[in-house]
Amino acid sequence: MSRILRINCRTKEYSFEDDGPYAGLGGRALTSRVINKEVPATCHPLSGENKLVIATGLMGGSTAANSGRVSVGTKSPLTGGIKESNSGGLFAHKMPKMGLKAIILEDKPEEGAPFSTLFITEDKVEFRDAADITGLDTYPGHDKLLAQYGDKLCAAMIGPAGETLRKTATIQFTDPYKRPARSAGRGGTGAVLGSKKIKAIVLDPEVNIKVSAANADAFKEARSTWVSILKGHPVTSQGLPGFGTSVLVNIINEAGALPTKNFRYGQCDHAAEISGEKIADVIKERGGKTTEGCHTGCIIQCSQQYNDADGNYVTSGFEYETVWALGANALIKDIDDIARIDRICDEKGMDTIEIGNTVAVAMDGGIIPWGDGKAAIELLEKIGSGDPLAMIIGNGVDFAGGAFGVDRLPTVKGQSMPAYDPRAVKGVGVTYATTAMGADHTAGYGVTANVLGVGGSVDGHKKEGNVELSKNLQVATAAIDSMGFCLFVAFAVLDSDNGVQTMADLVQSWTGNDFSVDDLVALGAGAMQDEQDFNERAGFSKVDDQLPRFFETDPLPPHNVTWDYTVEELQGAKA
Amino acid sequence: MSRILRINCRTKEYSFEDDGPYAGLGGRALTSRVINKEVPATCHPLSGENKLVIATGLMGGSTAANSGRVSVGTKSPLTGGIKESNSGGLFAHKMPKMGLKAIILEDKPEEGAPFSTLFITEDKVEFRDAADITGLDTYPGHDKLLAQYGDKLCAAMIGPAGETLRKTATIQFTDPYKRPARSAGRGGTGAVLGSKKIKAIVLDPEVNIKVSAANADAFKEARSTWVSILKGHPVTSQGLPGFGTSVLVNIINEAGALPTKNFRYGQCDHAAEISGEKIADVIKERGGKTTEGCHTGCIIQCSQQYNDADGNYVTSGFEYETVWALGANALIKDIDDIARIDRICDEKGMDTIEIGNTVAVAMDGGIIPWGDGKAAIELLEKIGSGDPLAMIIGNGVDFAGGAFGVDRLPTVKGQSMPAYDPRAVKGVGVTYATTAMGADHTAGYGVTANVLGVGGSVDGHKKEGNVELSKNLQVATAAIDSMGFCLFVAFAVLDSDNGVQTMADLVQSWTGNDFSVDDLVALGAGAMQDEQDFNERAGFSKVDDQLPRFFETDPLPPHNVTWDYTVEELQGAKA
Repeated sequence: MSRILRINCRTKEYSFEDDGPYAGLGGRALTSRVINKEVPATCHPLSGENKLVIATGLMGGSTAANSGRVSVGTKSPLTGGIKESNSGGLFAHKMPKMGLKAIILEDKPEEGAPFSTLFITEDKVEFRDAADITGLDTYPGHDKLLAQYGDKLCAAMIGPAGETLRKTATIQFTDPYKRPARSAGRGGTGAVLGSKKIKAIVLDPEVNIKVSAANADAFKEARSTWVSILKGHPVTSQGLPGFGTSVLVNIINEAGALPTKNFRYGQCDHAAEISGEKIADVIKERGGKTTEGCHTGCIIQCSQQYNDADGNYVTSGFEYETVWALGANALIKDIDDIARIDRICDEKGMDTIEIGNTVAVAMDGGIIPWGDGKAAIELLEKIGSGDPLAMIIGNGVDFAGGAFGVDRLPTVKGQSMPAYDPRAVKGVGVTYATTAMGADHTAGYGVTANVLGVGGSVDGHKKEGNVELSKNLQVATAAIDSMGFCLFVAFAVLDSDNGVQTMADLVQSWTGNDFSVDDLVALGAGAMQDEQDFNERAGFSKVDDQLPRFFETDPLPPHNVTWDYTVEELQGAKA
Repeated sequence: MSRILRINCRTKEYSFEDDGPYAGLGGRALTSRVINKEVPATCHPLSGENKLVIATGLMGGSTAANSGRVSVGTKSPLTGGIKESNSGGLFAHKMPKMGLKAIILEDKPEEGAPFSTLFITEDKVEFRDAADITGLDTYPGHDKLLAQYGDKLCAAMIGPAGETLRKTATIQFTDPYKRPARSAGRGGTGAVLGSKKIKAIVLDPEVNIKVSAANADAFKEARSTWVSILKGHPVTSQGLPGFGTSVLVNIINEAGALPTKNFRYGQCDHAAEISGEKIADVIKERGGKTTEGCHTGCIIQCSQQYNDADGNYVTSGFEYETVWALGANALIKDIDDIARIDRICDEKGMDTIEIGNTVAVAMDGGIIPWGDGKAAIELLEKIGSGDPLAMIIGNGVDFAGGAFGVDRLPTVKGQSMPAYDPRAVKGVGVTYATTAMGADHTAGYGVTANVLGVGGSVDGHKKEGNVELSKNLQVATAAIDSMGFCLFVAFAVLDSDNGVQTMADLVQSWTGNDFSVDDLVALGAGAMQDEQDFNERAGFSKVDDQLPRFFETDPLPPHNVTWDYTVEELQGAKA
């Protein structure tokens, strides 16, 4: 049973539908198809015409390792284009156990309507009064939901940023440790949920439909092969579990590609103070946890639990991109300040990459001093309060640039860049430029071949080979996002002879539908085509597939590389 | 002699050049050609790569009636596209008397550089210390310039809005009455000047090169015919001088096309209280002036001097669009409050249309109450102060919508609409949608045939005929803007058999170059083509040639008309 639940947030009507035109799709391929087919491309993202889709991947509900990512799709308030943002947490595996493949939220209530909690059972949807959690940060709000719904709570919720329609607003998902710590982070999906006046979505803890593989033996075999592939690669079996994603701080700094002081330099003097190695030491010292999974069935365990000096929990899902954005790009040296900001972002429901870059822009504009973590904390704690400065900060890099008169804005299609300078890591730079998502490393992570020597080796300083690298990775990634796998499986898959075949085997044996490697590639390419099609109808042209001009004019120290692709060359990376 | 003065605002180097590739162009045709040829289309508008061009029209310096408009061209910080904004004042006729056809400002100083006053003489440019006027509103700043340079002062300057790089910032020009009351209003040209750290440009009062017609007899004859055409039409000889441009309040309200409460209704209950008739009564009662020209040689005299209850000067250039935006669209009833806001906009250097609409959006977002003029005054007086709310308001409608979570935003290409609802006046609606300028009534004023019965009659409620109407008007307007004529001459020209021929005769006899009606049309069409070409390279696609969707979905009372053009249909209005 794979139903689509369609809910009208204005009339409160709903229907459980067959997947019909969306059969065979999952995760990102499904959300992008729905948005492309059903949302008027030129609508305002916060208008009733926009929709928000939450979809499990093709492997959702299965016991295949690392297959529990959930996709959120919408027209992005940040970029004005299509958006798929995926997250860990419990939602992806829970949805199939409710007979659900996707939830489509439509329309929005009249102005001034109160927030609701959507309570979804096997055959009903209730709009429940959310007065007791409205305005709350996500941790205390989530605690109230835990008290009400019990320890098997599986929720998605927004924080004050989403309620106040900030363009950086995330949707936070319940993680395996009863915390709202997993984020559909990028593109402002939380603002769309906020515009529909939904504070939280709770999946009935009592519903637990048994799901099983269509072909149990084949699935068991493929699953076993899959585990051995993931366990056999040094990145997924040692690097990530050992130091978390921040293992990359020293690596990318060494490569001269760690964007520093709002993308002025490729190396950061205090990189050691914010490195994965340092963080792991601090975590151990304070009784935190150096390994955690973001969803059940994860065997990579790249997440962590970071405590304060007194041993009290501060944050988890404390990622490299967060550490980089605040630590290197905004020059904040104190790792405790950075961890505190990570927690504030989870509490307010905000994308740490966009917020970290925005803090750097606020520093560039003289609003707060460079490197001043305490000042940043003070700023960010105001998000959702109606403070005009918080309205600005909560809207991301381009918006803050417009407010503060800063013209050095590292964004593509309105979304700011992650932790890899595109001048020195051109494989990911091509992805920033060309993906429909706006600057997004997870859409085609060319850092692999450019820096890590995974999946071959392509020089990140030169143009040659990086358009092809990015395109191949973009297609593969879109497929991975559609199956519901964690992107990090790609490290192992890229260096494995049978990785892609094994993923296809998993889908075929789990779903019972024929699914070859060609189908897998077509799934990814199809998602990209839906996304490109939507963006074109939304007004994007190939001119938007470029980086800001300062990457062309300003060489990046220490290697003094620049960005030098023509728009035409970049078109080769699109599906 | 028609030289181009090119000034580098970083190095302070300058050169007086032949017009070379720009020979035969003037006004808008010249600024748009320079921007299209010399500015990288994807540059940030506030980066050193952007340029700002100030150009006199082909008739600049002449004694032809109403030929003293000056064009300002740049890449707009508001729209991200090309911009030509023209203004009255003394600049246009003074430039030729300095041997200048255009001034091109390039690059910008290092961060933290102080503001300068550019003092331009016949053969030199000085960057003079502007510390004494930096941060000042335009009237007191202009008074200081008057004290320094004397009564023959001819200046362009920015206010605090331009200094702080607001997207609504204007450039204010000295008017014939020694006030900085004439604005290059739309698109944020003042922010570009601010980014280049130029607070004011002063043309040496002592330079006064004699200019004369190439063919004196022919010019004299054409000039006389021209006056009789302008004097012979009821709009230019009676309507505009009688009640100023606000004569339109009652007319457009009657037509059901006066956008009210952020474009919700086509009629305003208190229209009589803000009408041109009422304003003229108040002006007379208080000893103001009901007629004034915005530049020397004006025989239409549509401007006014508005005094307060004590008979003290408040403002001039108090236009219909200003009165509408604040009076009807933001529901402010007190005409004295509206006049005060007009003055504040001139003082801070801000576009009254964009600011009026932004005030309405702030009301829609619950920031200040609907119709509260005093609250609006308090908000706007903070512009330039570093107050974050002022940063938001000073950036216009789309920006304020993003800050306040308002999705009803009457903008095209980022610029908000003037005083005619496009659903009921489709001739101007087509112009809003298709001109490269963003929503701009002055780019092709279809109100003529839709409402005023000037230049024929086309039903403004129906699609038929309005694409053609808009296109013809857009071409004619671009030509008028390039010759330096006031747009209001069009009322008379459209109803005259020999109006267009007379304009061509004026250009030919004044310049000594062959100039036919065909050349005139080619001049206008060429300007539009430069503008469209730039915008395409800046990333605009035909999708951007549309109105926001609420104009399609929400019928406009009282006639309940909607907007129903397809994008393809609208392409017919482009050059």
